[in-house]
Amino acid sequence: MITSETHKGKPFSSLHPQFNGLLDIPLVSAGKVAESDVDVIFLALPHGVSMEFAEKWSGHRAPMIDFSGDFRLSTPEVYSHWYKKEHTYPTGLQSAVYGLPEIHADEIRNARLVANPGCYPTASILALAPLLADDLILTDTIIIDAKSGLTGAGISANATTHFSNVNDNFKAYGVTNHRHTIEIEEQCAGLCGHHVTVQFTPHLLPVDRGILATVYARPRKATDQAAVEKRYRDFYRDQPFVRIRDENPSLKDVRGSNFCDIRPVFDPRTNRIIVLSAIDNLVKGAAGQAVHNMNIMFGWPQETGLMHVPLQP
Amino acid sequence: MITSETHKGKPFSSLHPQFNGLLDIPLVSAGKVAESDVDVIFLALPHGVSMEFAEKWSGHRAPMIDFSGDFRLSTPEVYSHWYKKEHTYPTGLQSAVYGLPEIHADEIRNARLVANPGCYPTASILALAPLLADDLILTDTIIIDAKSGLTGAGISANATTHFSNVNDNFKAYGVTNHRHTIEIEEQCAGLCGHHVTVQFTPHLLPVDRGILATVYARPRKATDQAAVEKRYRDFYRDQPFVRIRDENPSLKDVRGSNFCDIRPVFDPRTNRIIVLSAIDNLVKGAAGQAVHNMNIMFGWPQETGLMHVPLQP
Amino acid sequence: MITSETHKGKPFSSLHPQFNGLLDIPLVSAGKVAESDVDVIFLALPHGVSMEFAEKWSGHRAPMIDFSGDFRLSTPEVYSHWYKKEHTYPTGLQSAVYGLPEIHADEIRNARLVANPGCYPTASILALAPLLADDLILTDTIIIDAKSGLTGAGISANATTHFSNVNDNFKAYGVTNHRHTIEIEEQCAGLCGHHVTVQFTPHLLPVDRGILATVYARPRKATDQAAVEKRYRDFYRDQPFVRIRDENPSLKDVRGSNFCDIRPVFDPRTNRIIVLSAIDNLVKGAAGQAVHNMNIMFGWPQETGLMHVPLQP
Amino acid sequence: MITSETHKGKPFSSLHPQFNGLLDIPLVSAGKVAESDVDVIFLALPHGVSMEFAEKWSGHRAPMIDFSGDFRLSTPEVYSHWYKKEHTYPTGLQSAVYGLPEIHADEIRNARLVANPGCYPTASILALAPLLADDLILTDTIIIDAKSGLTGAGISANATTHFSNVNDNFKAYGVTNHRHTIEIEEQCAGLCGHHVTVQFTPHLLPVDRGILATVYARPRKATDQAAVEKRYRDFYRDQPFVRIRDENPSLKDVRGSNFCDIRPVFDPRTNRIIVLSAIDNLVKGAAGQAVHNMNIMFGWPQETGLMHVPLQP
Repeated sequence: MITSETHKGKPFSSLHPQFNGLLDIPLVSAGKVAESDVDVIFLALPHGVSMEFAEKWSGHRAPMIDFSGDFRLSTPEVYSHWYKKEHTYPTGLQSAVYGLPEIHADEIRNARLVANPGCYPTASILALAPLLADDLILTDTIIIDAKSGLTGAGISANATTHFSNVNDNFKAYGVTNHRHTIEIEEQCAGLCGHHVTVQFTPHLLPVDRGILATVYARPRKATDQAAVEKRYRDFYRDQPFVRIRDENPSLKDVRGSNFCDIRPVFDPRTNRIIVLSAIDNLVKGAAGQAVHNMNIMFGWPQETGLMHVPLQP
Repeated sequence: MITSETHKGKPFSSLHPQFNGLLDIPLVSAGKVAESDVDVIFLALPHGVSMEFAEKWSGHRAPMIDFSGDFRLSTPEVYSHWYKKEHTYPTGLQSAVYGLPEIHADEIRNARLVANPGCYPTASILALAPLLADDLILTDTIIIDAKSGLTGAGISANATTHFSNVNDNFKAYGVTNHRHTIEIEEQCAGLCGHHVTVQFTPHLLPVDRGILATVYARPRKATDQAAVEKRYRDFYRDQPFVRIRDENPSLKDVRGSNFCDIRPVFDPRTNRIIVLSAIDNLVKGAAGQAVHNMNIMFGWPQETGLMHVPLQP
Repeated sequence: MITSETHKGKPFSSLHPQFNGLLDIPLVSAGKVAESDVDVIFLALPHGVSMEFAEKWSGHRAPMIDFSGDFRLSTPEVYSHWYKKEHTYPTGLQSAVYGLPEIHADEIRNARLVANPGCYPTASILALAPLLADDLILTDTIIIDAKSGLTGAGISANATTHFSNVNDNFKAYGVTNHRHTIEIEEQCAGLCGHHVTVQFTPHLLPVDRGILATVYARPRKATDQAAVEKRYRDFYRDQPFVRIRDENPSLKDVRGSNFCDIRPVFDPRTNRIIVLSAIDNLVKGAAGQAVHNMNIMFGWPQETGLMHVPLQP
Repeated sequence: MITSETHKGKPFSSLHPQFNGLLDIPLVSAGKVAESDVDVIFLALPHGVSMEFAEKWSGHRAPMIDFSGDFRLSTPEVYSHWYKKEHTYPTGLQSAVYGLPEIHADEIRNARLVANPGCYPTASILALAPLLADDLILTDTIIIDAKSGLTGAGISANATTHFSNVNDNFKAYGVTNHRHTIEIEEQCAGLCGHHVTVQFTPHLLPVDRGILATVYARPRKATDQAAVEKRYRDFYRDQPFVRIRDENPSLKDVRGSNFCDIRPVFDPRTNRIIVLSAIDNLVKGAAGQAVHNMNIMFGWPQETGLMHVPLQP
């Protein structure tokens, strides 16, 4: 069942015409959904609203996968500092599992409430995890220069999403204070075991889908290209959705798919590691990752329903 | 097996990086392919080259589906007039079946050589077929104003395909003399049983994929919206890939899919029928239609391998 | 002075950052503008609102150039039929001059109220005028298949202008009933001296600026390419902003400029004339044409302030 | 006079149709140009070719402004290391002045051979100059994450410039080894007086024009936003083409103009300075800067011919 208060009664395909003849079922009000109707709940709501629903449905047998920022951070205090509002369901926050399958598959398997990661954090953490998990980089040198397609800004119509402000244009936003900064920092700290400060600068691309994160960091010890690359291949050996690349990944290499394509580079001239990481923000950065989490929670093969060939061109 | 003379030996995914980890098999030279290796042959070659291969492999047991313009027209004379070269395999031309499944499924079922339709003709003929099959329109009033994404111009790099000439731009080309004109005219004549002249004007859109054909014609007799619309729904009732729409179809409604979305409109003010028809030129207008033809030739369900949800946005 | 009720007090450049350092004057409320402050008034208001202001300021010495649809049509009845509202200033409507300089320069010179033409009508009428002024075409065969950049949809943010609905996409809208239809028909009738019905189909391009109109019509008498082309060159001989082209004009050929590039083609195979006409909808289709009208009204050289080289790429 | 060996004899406007009626003069062979015909020479040639011409014309009275990379670096050795070819005109290299007017106006005034800066270096050096000139940053912490429109890749048609590889896509290129790295490093060293190593990562945007450089560096001493911003405003006080901005500059804020829009930000959380710098790579990054250099060389007002309002949208 797909719920909507605004559009209840309309066929799903009337809002998303690509589904004509494929998914014409009517949208229903959330209030009409009986507990016995559902085996798993996907919450695709704004932050602040999501925690209300998560609390209301917390007694149901169906586990929840939440797309908002409400259950991704460590404490109510951190949440209220970055999201500028009180957290009303702190026990939910405490029990929630961060749903990045490549890192937290074991906890996800038994979770009742999964916090589906943000799109920027997904691309950024996967780019850094092999280095952080072995504490290979100086954690105050991390810079994440990230570029996102416009769908990252959501479906609401405003000056930011107006075609003429985006098309043939490019700009930074949220410089120094984007909310995904803290999500990335906390997850990175979890990986390396100590405090991490990242410089995170998002930019808005004139494309529909996709994030490319260009990540910079200084290694703790002398290294070289072969060692860095081997570390990435080893770390992601058994992961079906991470592809270590020899060339620079482009957004269309992953568009419409659940892949995260990563290229790690060591620059001996500057003694710096540069990691390029590309995802589709709507799939690996959102819905695909949620399905991946569901697959793990239900003990299904991880790839179930997710092995689409990226659409190129 | 996928053949290439230019790139033989390379993994397929090195040319099309979206297939990394999904299809890494090496490309092979066509000369290395044994007859026993193949059950069906897809010829994706330039016109002029295709007829050579089709002739060479005509004795094999595997049927052929050809993507070029070499086998779509009625006679060698018509071919040489519009394609400015001799046809060297006229018996192939004579035996070939025009592979538009919605119209010619019965002949396709038993064909040895299928001429996969051009992208513009696919969108145009499907827009006109319900009207022509009952001889409902004045055939000298047909105007097809068509707009195509850049992939219609092919993979070769030249001034036409240079980003800066296409992006944020729009123009007509091939005005009065595009080769698809005769392909459309001959197929339309086959449907209504008499000569048809169409005005066909293609334009180049700054998008990757998709064709929208806006088709105009005068009805022979008085009609109205309900009658026109009913005609379309009846005609395509059993066709899995044609969707009759109430709203104007957009390119993204069909992108990455084998659907043809059609909206017929009758304008009582001008006494004219206007039909909007949208396809993805790389799927319904090329590879998807070829697979559809293969499915019919082998007696498989028509939808096999083709029921992708269009990628939107 | 530039007025704005919503943004009064803010520097103009804060809304349009390209003007930083070039035009930082504060916006003022219209109510603060004294009669003696202004020599000419440009009204850039929604239809319905514009006629109120035009009436209020009708006693002032400054002539007015109006950008809305309020003063472009022939009678209040025609206006209310197509615009679905009453006309509250019919004497203004009666006295207004249609501001297409290539056709109406003499009336514009002495006008007190100029109705600046719509963007689609500008491209369409200029494409047809040489034929209509000599009654060379069958006026029930005119089809205008027009394609516009997104700025034609205005600055307001809504589903239509959301980047993800426009980018890499294309669709028709207003099929059979767009308001510019009647504006085109009335002006065409004025040129040829009898009733004209046009089929007008607008489409939305994923580009910022520009309109390309592809116009079709049957000639009354036998003709050829040379005669048609000569007619266009003669008709526009002394017009600084119309360029008759040998190749198909593209949107970028005129982007950012006041030019209208026109290519007329006669197709002997179908006995039809096809005219391609390109403008920048924000310049020749709006602000540039308004300045052109001002230049004529004040007796200045027509090109004053308007001779920009189109921005390509 | 505009020279071309490939297109000699053709009107300039036949290659650049936006100039129809504005600049129709025929292109001439360089060999036909007499010394007395020219007062200044603009060399728009590939590197390697440019030095041949510069040497051949070095005895003429007309000064030269060169667009290639041939005269931008310090020594023939550095040149051959980064450009992989011998420098055949080392005395030219030694005498050439680096044509960044905001930094080198005094030398430009008397130069016989000006090396017009690269597009990336222009955006990058202007972003860093106020900090470097007072030695305010740790020069081994500089990271320049730059994003360029496709025209940066030139007019030649190849896989890189093919629309379908660029549209709705994004990727990095030249990671760790782009030639503009050394140009930036040498100019930065000249400003601060000691060695500078920069990490320079260019990316390819699906836009026609524009570069946005996002520049990161650590301050040497404690600082704050007010101090950093004041430094930038003071440094560029008298420069007509640098605009210090309060908001994040976008590419369209400068498109078609000679402006460089800069926003400096200090992040107290990370103790890092982030500078956003936007130019049009074809104007401030190439032709406009060349005209600016000419204006200085001839003692004309700097703004002559260059005060275009950026085209937005």
